[in-house]
Amino acid sequence: MFMQNEISSVIVYERHSVTSRRPGPVSRGRLSDIPSPLLPERYYWDSKLRIPTADYQEVLEDDKAALAWLLALRRVGIVYLKGAPAQQGQVSRLAKRIGYLRLTFYGHTWQVQDKPMANNVAYTSGKLSQHTDYPALHFAPGVQFLHCINQAVEGGESEVVDGFHAAEQLQREDPEAFSTLSSLHVDFTDTGTDYCDFMLQSKKCIIDVDAEGRVARINYNNATRDSVLDLPLHQVQPFYRALRSYVDVMNRPENVVTYRMEPGDLVTFDNWRLLHGRRSYVSNPGRLRHLEGAYLDWDEVMSRLRILRRKVHGDA
Amino acid sequence: MFMQNEISSVIVYERHSVTSRRPGPVSRGRLSDIPSPLLPERYYWDSKLRIPTADYQEVLEDDKAALAWLLALRRVGIVYLKGAPAQQGQVSRLAKRIGYLRLTFYGHTWQVQDKPMANNVAYTSGKLSQHTDYPALHFAPGVQFLHCINQAVEGGESEVVDGFHAAEQLQREDPEAFSTLSSLHVDFTDTGTDYCDFMLQSKKCIIDVDAEGRVARINYNNATRDSVLDLPLHQVQPFYRALRSYVDVMNRPENVVTYRMEPGDLVTFDNWRLLHGRRSYVSNPGRLRHLEGAYLDWDEVMSRLRILRRKVHGDA
Repeated sequence: MFMQNEISSVIVYERHSVTSRRPGPVSRGRLSDIPSPLLPERYYWDSKLRIPTADYQEVLEDDKAALAWLLALRRVGIVYLKGAPAQQGQVSRLAKRIGYLRLTFYGHTWQVQDKPMANNVAYTSGKLSQHTDYPALHFAPGVQFLHCINQAVEGGESEVVDGFHAAEQLQREDPEAFSTLSSLHVDFTDTGTDYCDFMLQSKKCIIDVDAEGRVARINYNNATRDSVLDLPLHQVQPFYRALRSYVDVMNRPENVVTYRMEPGDLVTFDNWRLLHGRRSYVSNPGRLRHLEGAYLDWDEVMSRLRILRRKVHGDA
Repeated sequence: MFMQNEISSVIVYERHSVTSRRPGPVSRGRLSDIPSPLLPERYYWDSKLRIPTADYQEVLEDDKAALAWLLALRRVGIVYLKGAPAQQGQVSRLAKRIGYLRLTFYGHTWQVQDKPMANNVAYTSGKLSQHTDYPALHFAPGVQFLHCINQAVEGGESEVVDGFHAAEQLQREDPEAFSTLSSLHVDFTDTGTDYCDFMLQSKKCIIDVDAEGRVARINYNNATRDSVLDLPLHQVQPFYRALRSYVDVMNRPENVVTYRMEPGDLVTFDNWRLLHGRRSYVSNPGRLRHLEGAYLDWDEVMSRLRILRRKVHGDA
């Protein structure tokens, strides 16, 4: 369990970890990457997590701060940045610090507001139960940025859960449910118009595991899970029972971290790992609650992390 | 084996196939997608393929032509478009016909030319052996567009192979090699500067198979396969032997389709399935050979295919 909010000690740990576990002299003639087994290990957390926090301007300007940010994003799955200007454009600036953002059918960046004729439940004032974003894409965005420009006067608190930790609990407490959710493919769908018209369909396991059986990605969004359940009859009840079991684990108060974004706060998190939600809020048409969001992918984030590590530590 | 270059009969087949295999009345209240088992099946091909060909302007302007293009792209894996203006910007126009292109570290679109201090082997006049693009990204681009603006006077012919067909041949003739290439993860790497600086590392199987063991994606580019082979000693020789065996199959003359792009030709192909290469050419500094390329992903292509199918056939 990792409960740490001082990003400087995240990096100290990382340097030690990398140094002590590095193999012998590297024989290749060019700058080498630290092999993935030596990547920062993930630290699973629960409601007692103090979210790692850094300064937005420092991350933009200082390589050490940017490296610490990305290492903590990889290891803890969520990092909070404070001190961004409370105006649009900050998620794009932060994406440029890495490389580029990922365009989707919701645009380069997207405005989370209470909108008339909303094309997505996020664009209402309603509660959003725990979910990952965009499982209707076969390759869901790896990283999400959300920047608070205006907060509601009442409600609108954010909630996050470590989906890997919850999946590990499920595997221990209800192995049959874990096995069901990591083997049955269910459909996700998203149809509408935004950046342009779209009609997405995907088939996903709720819990993706890698070749070694380790949890690799969570795909869960009940708002876009298809109304058609394309499973043989004998798997229908086991699937719903298993999903209920996982949702019950993720909603346990001891697993949920709640925070309230204020204007200028910008949260960055691992969308393959974290589930996130929002409490309903009272909409004020004169001063709309307003978050701006953007997506990136892990390949680009890890690329920047490698470059920063070389710059900061000079490790070739 | 599918040897067909009249795109109109591709769509006739598709309509029949979809109609005859459609399940009973659809109960959901909204426009439904045809479930993925009813997608056009893939047709494997060899050197006798006549590449399906359509008119660039028609695909841009006519929904039926665009639908036939995308169905053939899915089924055959390659479609040739003729009659594009021989100037930059056409791959972007064609991407907008679908939705949007995929930005990578090589930019929104990229210029394949003989460049001084090339940061990629494609940007020379040398031969390119059969490869898929960008396995250094964990999620390699699904679809590639290449538009010929200038061709070399001598050399520069294009070569393509159906990687799924070659993998099927390998599985039949050398099952041990197939099993090795679909289970061992090897490293790919790409470091340099283009759209911005990058330092990519990935671990991939050369042949990805799905949960049912069917070939789902080829990841092979010897120019970006890492010089470090991160395998236990006893797997090193079996891996090289297996790779050699697959490369021998893909290079058999009876598997290779050769064509020569002329200015205004635009080829679109499935980068998860096809291997492509280029013969060396004589570089003429006064009139450089010039292709413009762009990437897209299958989720966006399939989204447009569903929308076009609804428009053209009115199937809800």
